[in-house]
Amino acid sequence: MGINLTNFLSSKSKNTKMIDFQDLDHLDGLSISVVSANLYKDNRDDLTMFYFRGGANYSSIYTQSKIVSENIKWNINQRPQKIFSLIVNTRNANTFTGKQGYESLKKIADLTAKQLNNKQQEDEESPKKISTKNIIFGCTGTIGETFPYEKIYKNIPNLINKIRYTQNKFIWMKSALAIMTTDTKPKLAMEECQIGSEKVKIYGIAKGSGMIYPNMATTLVYIFTDATLSNDILGKLLKKNISNTFNAISCDGDTSTNDMATIFATNEVNNSSVKSINENKIKNFDKSLNNVLLNLAKRIVSDGEGASKFITINVSKCKNEIDAKKIAFSIANSPLVKTAVSGEDPNWGRIVMAIGKAGPKINLNKLSIKFGNIIILEAGKLHQGYDEKQTANYMKGGDIEINIEIFTGKKNFTAYTMDLTNKYIEINSDYRS
Amino acid sequence: MGINLTNFLSSKSKNTKMIDFQDLDHLDGLSISVVSANLYKDNRDDLTMFYFRGGANYSSIYTQSKIVSENIKWNINQRPQKIFSLIVNTRNANTFTGKQGYESLKKIADLTAKQLNNKQQEDEESPKKISTKNIIFGCTGTIGETFPYEKIYKNIPNLINKIRYTQNKFIWMKSALAIMTTDTKPKLAMEECQIGSEKVKIYGIAKGSGMIYPNMATTLVYIFTDATLSNDILGKLLKKNISNTFNAISCDGDTSTNDMATIFATNEVNNSSVKSINENKIKNFDKSLNNVLLNLAKRIVSDGEGASKFITINVSKCKNEIDAKKIAFSIANSPLVKTAVSGEDPNWGRIVMAIGKAGPKINLNKLSIKFGNIIILEAGKLHQGYDEKQTANYMKGGDIEINIEIFTGKKNFTAYTMDLTNKYIEINSDYRS
Repeated sequence: MGINLTNFLSSKSKNTKMIDFQDLDHLDGLSISVVSANLYKDNRDDLTMFYFRGGANYSSIYTQSKIVSENIKWNINQRPQKIFSLIVNTRNANTFTGKQGYESLKKIADLTAKQLNNKQQEDEESPKKISTKNIIFGCTGTIGETFPYEKIYKNIPNLINKIRYTQNKFIWMKSALAIMTTDTKPKLAMEECQIGSEKVKIYGIAKGSGMIYPNMATTLVYIFTDATLSNDILGKLLKKNISNTFNAISCDGDTSTNDMATIFATNEVNNSSVKSINENKIKNFDKSLNNVLLNLAKRIVSDGEGASKFITINVSKCKNEIDAKKIAFSIANSPLVKTAVSGEDPNWGRIVMAIGKAGPKINLNKLSIKFGNIIILEAGKLHQGYDEKQTANYMKGGDIEINIEIFTGKKNFTAYTMDLTNKYIEINSDYRS
Repeated sequence: MGINLTNFLSSKSKNTKMIDFQDLDHLDGLSISVVSANLYKDNRDDLTMFYFRGGANYSSIYTQSKIVSENIKWNINQRPQKIFSLIVNTRNANTFTGKQGYESLKKIADLTAKQLNNKQQEDEESPKKISTKNIIFGCTGTIGETFPYEKIYKNIPNLINKIRYTQNKFIWMKSALAIMTTDTKPKLAMEECQIGSEKVKIYGIAKGSGMIYPNMATTLVYIFTDATLSNDILGKLLKKNISNTFNAISCDGDTSTNDMATIFATNEVNNSSVKSINENKIKNFDKSLNNVLLNLAKRIVSDGEGASKFITINVSKCKNEIDAKKIAFSIANSPLVKTAVSGEDPNWGRIVMAIGKAGPKINLNKLSIKFGNIIILEAGKLHQGYDEKQTANYMKGGDIEINIEIFTGKKNFTAYTMDLTNKYIEINSDYRS
């Protein structure tokens, strides 16, 4: 394997605000197995199976793109009550692969269901009946190449052979590495919380490493909990918490052909039943889910292609959240702002430019801009005590915070992005093969 | 002066499709003078006066940004029947300069009007009365620095002293150089045409050198004609012809604080009166104006910061022009497409991604993609004869054409852009001072 696992486990995140790697361990009802199907021709791990032996409740959010990969079509066409396996491959996006891509998934799902049924017969006291539609897929990689059906198909028995009932931090790390494409670091996060009096776990892994919009590279996010929650509640919780986490690093509707966020509940913890996401007993879980998603979203940003600095853009006191979001993304997506940050230049003129072009009206006589706590503009004027040297010094840090107050209302939005560097160009102008 | 004028005059445009430098010469009714006010502290030319001794009819299109420079405010607040002078400075955008910036312009306009009145008294048989409001400004450069009022004010007499009645290619080149900021080449274009039986000239200069949207750096476009045309007709012609020229390189509404396109008519040619832009006698002028604007717009793209390749994106057979434009700009603004082009990689998967995320519905079963004449996708499938080597070879050229057919209707849009290179990052991450 090209990637040194030990280095990853011991490496410290550059971003001081980010919690370092969190150790994920056993989660009842879930098994993970990882193999190399040699899709990259260098024997790196590239094929991962998540197996829910009791079946998992679940909910997914998919790309808004008008062109979607064959695996997204497959997943949308199934819709079983429970999922028994999620199979994720990297290297090939299964997009523009047409019938070959879709039929490949069907054959792989058939084989998986058949072999998992055999496994259920051997292992379980009351074996479940697993059918083809209980299997869903995550695919990421190059678009338009023939889907490597044979390599994946013949590795299904290996994946199933490797299933162990107890998981540890190594298998989690292995799976987080095996779903990567151009990512340089695996992304894992976890929280423990309570539903009513019962302790539950929320574990998550993700991949994605684009630049201006992380969504231009495929984002995959998989969340696992041992709680008992219905498909309906999972869907509402996921939708609610994606908006200020993954949608704060990617503009609505601007997604790759393969983006996929799915939450699975193994129902192993016998917590009291949740009927609505407004119930008090789910608040703690709700908050923890947000933490896990935000943690993963930030890890994707800070691993952005060529990123050298993590940028947080807080836009506050807007008429509505849509305005705040428009302004935040106008700044976050401006290559001129991003290159200024990479050059450690407190070029606030470019931020003014990005605010102006965003669209929403601005209260120019009140507009305030700060880098961290350093006031640049106050009441629409350059702050009297503005000290360029002090600000330039602030820009040398790895964590840059841009704080904007618009003064047209009370709504806020925070976007996360990274700087734009030479390294980004190198990564993306490299010929594919 | 840091820039070698002879080199510019003799240099060949890299872009084979682009006409090389056109020599602009005398245009009745217009005088140009250029000085260095030492705004860059290196004695380069940085201050230009366009003087219309009989007064010029005119029309302007300004930035759509919610934050505009003081000179745009000034220009909008005047609205005289005729303009006698346009003064353009570089180095300082006069944005976020508040009262100091605005009042500076007033004092400079006062002085200019006074001195031009003196000149009229000396030179003209029937001197015109020039007032402060007959003077407008173009400003470009850094945002938020105090406007260099004194340097500019004290150079007004020098500008007026240097006015000569006959213009030649050297003074045009000098002015095109003097309005530049990060541009590496001056932009000039011309056409001669007829209104009815009368020959008229259309001359234009421009500056602007941003990347993803050229509008992120200020775009200045000044068009001059010796024709007799009313403010109303000039306005309609400019608006009509900007949409598939300068708005084909910059997305609507996404503009810098200072963008400005103005057309001036000196009314020196006694052509027959034009009452509507639908009249037959204006068709030839209309087409020539479009040529001049498109020529300048393309020069801005090909001089885009760090650009190594010129990219033309033709999106056709759409339901409406808005759809075609959305798809064209989704491709043109994708950093992943732009870096692939810079890496000479025919990575059509990224084009599919950009089409998919653009928003409009696609007829996937008919979708066609070509690089130049090389068919990549046909009827929604990878073309049988697709030859990656041949396509990679095409990508080595300096002019890349991406041709897309959507098959939802009959409307088209063409966008122009350039590739994204390391050079762009270097230019924009350089600390300002």
